[in-house]
Amino acid sequence: MGQRSSAPPSPRTRVRRIAELADYEQETLHAILDEAYVCHIAFHDGESIHCIPTACWRIDNHLYIHGSNGSRMVKALLGGAQASIAVTHIDGLVLAKSAFSHSMNYRSAVIYGVFEQVRGNAKKMEAMDIFMDKLASGRQHEARTGNAKELAATNVLRVSLDEAAAKVSNNGPVDKEEDLDLPVWAGVLPLKTIHGDPIGAGNEAVPTPDYVTSWAKANN
Amino acid sequence: MGQRSSAPPSPRTRVRRIAELADYEQETLHAILDEAYVCHIAFHDGESIHCIPTACWRIDNHLYIHGSNGSRMVKALLGGAQASIAVTHIDGLVLAKSAFSHSMNYRSAVIYGVFEQVRGNAKKMEAMDIFMDKLASGRQHEARTGNAKELAATNVLRVSLDEAAAKVSNNGPVDKEEDLDLPVWAGVLPLKTIHGDPIGAGNEAVPTPDYVTSWAKANN
Repeated sequence: MGQRSSAPPSPRTRVRRIAELADYEQETLHAILDEAYVCHIAFHDGESIHCIPTACWRIDNHLYIHGSNGSRMVKALLGGAQASIAVTHIDGLVLAKSAFSHSMNYRSAVIYGVFEQVRGNAKKMEAMDIFMDKLASGRQHEARTGNAKELAATNVLRVSLDEAAAKVSNNGPVDKEEDLDLPVWAGVLPLKTIHGDPIGAGNEAVPTPDYVTSWAKANN
Repeated sequence: MGQRSSAPPSPRTRVRRIAELADYEQETLHAILDEAYVCHIAFHDGESIHCIPTACWRIDNHLYIHGSNGSRMVKALLGGAQASIAVTHIDGLVLAKSAFSHSMNYRSAVIYGVFEQVRGNAKKMEAMDIFMDKLASGRQHEARTGNAKELAATNVLRVSLDEAAAKVSNNGPVDKEEDLDLPVWAGVLPLKTIHGDPIGAGNEAVPTPDYVTSWAKANN
């Protein structure tokens, strides 16, 4: 997937195209991040390099994560480790008429930076509320909010999106001229993530909230 | 997602439990890798740390990737860079009765190691054929196979699964005793990846093969 990206603008259209691209790419970047529940974070903890999946959410121009005080990743990131964060959605397999022209459709984002700690209970709670709203819109004032002990055990971290790039591939197969007449099926086998039917637990006296009834309907 | 893993076995059941766990985890590890089309690779190229998504497939005890000669990642990995590779499937959001007890269900694998180059056209082709068979079973002898030039421009790399760990969380919400009677909906909002209807391109004279007609049926 390292092969494709937007073509660089030509010198004569540089300013206009960069401006357009920048807008387009920020919108694209935000959409990719907002659709993801999890990112992968690359970091070095002084002993080894790691690639770790963790829950994420975006607020304005930052990507947020959280983790417990004891987490190796949290310790390394709060220690100033350089990080690279990737979010990837796979949209389909692209079958071409020759083996080496196969590819995938995807939307991905890679961010580079150093995480900073979100400090102060009010700011931490505000960030966690927005995370909860991403998981289940309307829920953040319903579930019991974190108490002082829970908040103290949880770190909230964020990294700027200033150094981030989005890449999108959304194409049919691209075959070489001499392969076009081969009697081989070419096209896209789409992949998509859908919502399954909610599975309740211990809700004997609880009316089903909107964010649960609407969950599986979001597929349509 | 760093918080959960299998509980360590107690000293008195150590040997038996480790043996069982090892079997179980290898099967789990393989299933997680075989279901994935893409992994994320953390590596350092001498200048910066990177987290890059790339297509992957498993053969026996190795995870395979491929990339062009010009790829920064391929150059760094063939230069002996330490790598950490993660594969993650998100199966659902777990909503609890208190904000800080929320979690996710997932299956993930993390591999540590150094990639080695698969050398020789026969071995490269064999590995690529197996990759093709993962993408579309039965297709590898149908699409035009790679020629000498295409093979020469493509690197196939593999990393051993000897240093790999799988983690699986597949639970309902776990709330604290004092929260159990709160009038808040708790349960799982499932997420799953499904196959969409194939989109053909340039197949005027080609009968639709089995791997295409069966694609969307695999959801059932």
